[in-house]
Amino acid sequence: MDIRHVFAANLRRLRHEKGYSQEDLAYEADINRTYMSALEKGSHYVGLEIIEKLSKVLAVEPADFLKPAPKPSRRRKVASA
Amino acid sequence: MDIRHVFAANLRRLRHEKGYSQEDLAYEADINRTYMSALEKGSHYVGLEIIEKLSKVLAVEPADFLKPAPKPSRRRKVASA
Repeated sequence: MDIRHVFAANLRRLRHEKGYSQEDLAYEADINRTYMSALEKGSHYVGLEIIEKLSKVLAVEPADFLKPAPKPSRRRKVASA
Repeated sequence: MDIRHVFAANLRRLRHEKGYSQEDLAYEADINRTYMSALEKGSHYVGLEIIEKLSKVLAVEPADFLKPAPKPSRRRKVASA
């Protein structure tokens, strides 16, 4: 997975975990809303100054944005007997 | 510590651990040598495309560049008896 998509997936996950809307996070971190939306789509190579702003608002470590996402567990739906 | 300096310290540490000179790493990662030198001084907010290139050449995780550096243990020099 491209590093942009690793970052995008972590950004979405951390934002949801902390209960921020995309709009609120953009406002708090002083990031343009359109740019924020693009970041969550994995369309930009973000710079460290943005990672620093986001990590401060979300109260997470900057490295958390670059960690490989855990594979989602896709359990098969078991038909009820 | 500013995120630029966290990155710079990790870059120097990982480069030394892997036995690369600054010049060799710049060449292998296709990064301008002057820029590479500036990065190790913590004077730039690097972008993820550079972190991706460096992590591939050094065979480390991109997140390794953003982890807070361990405090150097400063043991006092004990005067020999």
